[in-house]
Amino acid sequence: MTRSLYLSNVRLADGQFVSVSSVDGRIEAIGAHVTAPPGAHLEDGGGALLLPGFVEGHTHIDKSNWGRPWYRNEVGPLLTDRISNEREWRKTSGHDAAAQSLALSRAFVQMGTTRLRTHVDIDTDARLRHLEGVLATRQTMHDVLEMQIVAFPQSGMLVRPGTVELLGSALTEGADVLGALDPALIDGDPVASLDATFALADRHGKPIDIHLHEPGEIGAFTLRLLLDRAETMGMQGRVVVSHGFCLGALPERERDALLDRIAHRRVALLTSAPPSRTVPPLKLCRKKGITMFGGNDGIRDTWSPYGVPDMLERAMLIGMRYDLRRDDDLMIAFDCVSEAAARGCGFADYGLRAGARADLVLVDAASVAHAVVARPVRKLVVSNGRIVARDGALA
Amino acid sequence: MTRSLYLSNVRLADGQFVSVSSVDGRIEAIGAHVTAPPGAHLEDGGGALLLPGFVEGHTHIDKSNWGRPWYRNEVGPLLTDRISNEREWRKTSGHDAAAQSLALSRAFVQMGTTRLRTHVDIDTDARLRHLEGVLATRQTMHDVLEMQIVAFPQSGMLVRPGTVELLGSALTEGADVLGALDPALIDGDPVASLDATFALADRHGKPIDIHLHEPGEIGAFTLRLLLDRAETMGMQGRVVVSHGFCLGALPERERDALLDRIAHRRVALLTSAPPSRTVPPLKLCRKKGITMFGGNDGIRDTWSPYGVPDMLERAMLIGMRYDLRRDDDLMIAFDCVSEAAARGCGFADYGLRAGARADLVLVDAASVAHAVVARPVRKLVVSNGRIVARDGALA
Repeated sequence: MTRSLYLSNVRLADGQFVSVSSVDGRIEAIGAHVTAPPGAHLEDGGGALLLPGFVEGHTHIDKSNWGRPWYRNEVGPLLTDRISNEREWRKTSGHDAAAQSLALSRAFVQMGTTRLRTHVDIDTDARLRHLEGVLATRQTMHDVLEMQIVAFPQSGMLVRPGTVELLGSALTEGADVLGALDPALIDGDPVASLDATFALADRHGKPIDIHLHEPGEIGAFTLRLLLDRAETMGMQGRVVVSHGFCLGALPERERDALLDRIAHRRVALLTSAPPSRTVPPLKLCRKKGITMFGGNDGIRDTWSPYGVPDMLERAMLIGMRYDLRRDDDLMIAFDCVSEAAARGCGFADYGLRAGARADLVLVDAASVAHAVVARPVRKLVVSNGRIVARDGALA
Repeated sequence: MTRSLYLSNVRLADGQFVSVSSVDGRIEAIGAHVTAPPGAHLEDGGGALLLPGFVEGHTHIDKSNWGRPWYRNEVGPLLTDRISNEREWRKTSGHDAAAQSLALSRAFVQMGTTRLRTHVDIDTDARLRHLEGVLATRQTMHDVLEMQIVAFPQSGMLVRPGTVELLGSALTEGADVLGALDPALIDGDPVASLDATFALADRHGKPIDIHLHEPGEIGAFTLRLLLDRAETMGMQGRVVVSHGFCLGALPERERDALLDRIAHRRVALLTSAPPSRTVPPLKLCRKKGITMFGGNDGIRDTWSPYGVPDMLERAMLIGMRYDLRRDDDLMIAFDCVSEAAARGCGFADYGLRAGARADLVLVDAASVAHAVVARPVRKLVVSNGRIVARDGALA
């Protein structure tokens, strides 16, 4: 049976009132004079602001405690404290990656996210257990949430023998992207670690998304090694560098030379815009043609108690981190969780245009900037042409 | 008639279940075996977490657009752009400081704030007009919101002749605290500006709260001049430095020497924890015995579109800025918008203890840390012994 929707009386970012028709999960037309497809479900948007479905560019749905009893955080201050605490906790607490990733995915959809990239822990203790949980969630949610899974060696790769093989298995069993983590400061051997990552990605024909927390000069060193390999391995346009804190803490000339190489290799950058870390320069990256996009990182997990599955709130935090105050600047913050994120992750058929997937969000807001700072209740969320949430609750 | 309240079945931060009795706006007792005062209104807390009423340590309720049509921000990037844009806009837009400060004050109370320090613009264009509006709001709200008003020379003091006299009039007409702004970078003469500020405060017997945005070495220079005067003028314990960005950007030895002087003069520090600026070191300040507290700064005004009158959200932003992740660390973030803010502003009779003002907030949260990151709906807000909000709505 054909699934058709006709959403009338909604407002675009430019103030124009339009209607949207969708058939079989695709936008058929958007405009002032669009008519309803035959037999369509009719929905009056009440003049609300129409936004495209949001894109979460970097999260960890397998490790969240969303909706579970409060996790009392008493973890030590080092990255390695957090890694070993979490691995131990996941082994002993009965934490269920399937249940938790499903709970968080549902909350994402409820708040307007229709595409999501998640990094899933692969390690020699849990092996592919967390991946299996997230694959089950992806299957359950497939009709309303497009999910990319990154096979992520959270506990290190070379430092834990057997991890490379497990990552290979993860890519065979359904992961879409190969993850990596701090080749120098966690793996202890940036050349060997990056070589192994690029070789594995090449063998499986998968793109790469690397967590690079390494600060300042050591981060820049690793990044140069990575860019060398992106070039020699023909991975232009297929690498994301997540976090990239070093790019916010280099002398200007060195930073600009690195950004030029990043632009040239079409490497994309992801930021969660953490207020306590240095971050890549957003406007400069955009000026240089680099796709820079946003994500929440972990939400309510043993790493950090913060975060909500609301990409408008993440856009707000991005705006605050980069001191974006003007309305036109806040459009950039929103772009980080919509168009730029879809481009950075490679989600196809995105946007408010005919032919794109019918992923729509309605909010009561005067403008995109207003939506970002006020984070209003989602009046309506449409994913893949289906109404999935209404007035803040799942439909 | 006696006004009595008996709130049973609530949970303290340490997990203990207690009841609270209040009579005539004061807490009479808190404990497991407290009984209801005769004729008291009885309220079952349903096991919710009991917090003290929140304290807003630094905001600008006279300039907010809260609840008004969206203000499209197209302002230039400099501090002086923002100042002159705002002064012009307030002259020509019909913005009403009385109506706007009332709307925002009501929203503050609704979200659990019962004490508030606001900086009110005094300048040679508007003269005391904004102050009169805020005084009217203070009068309207006096029973449920304790408000301190700072007479604030937003457009500069020495650079606009006549301002000193207007600030004097403001202090005579009801302002509680003398404000000041960037003695070097706005007033152009740090010595003369600070001398004028301290002389005026001395003449009126009022404390000082200075906006110090001046960065790095110039800020440190101004701060040393300020500390000299705090000492010679006998203003120990009567000066707040708001923002103090410079304290986050000095060489360690210089910073520590300054912090020692700040502690010794009992100067308090206020931060809004902006993610895009350097900030004073929170934990180090506390270790040195400095009262450091939090505030929203402007909310939804021509300066910045951000902000909500929710001190739990501000505590969350403070926590994120200072990378506070552990539960015990998040207690510090909450302290910044409760005890420390009351102490920094000098609000008397604060806290969850017998004899204090009966200012109580109930939320569904497992812990203070949980309340800060989740910012749940306020189940109940009691101010001065009266129920003022319930389930997120004003009563």
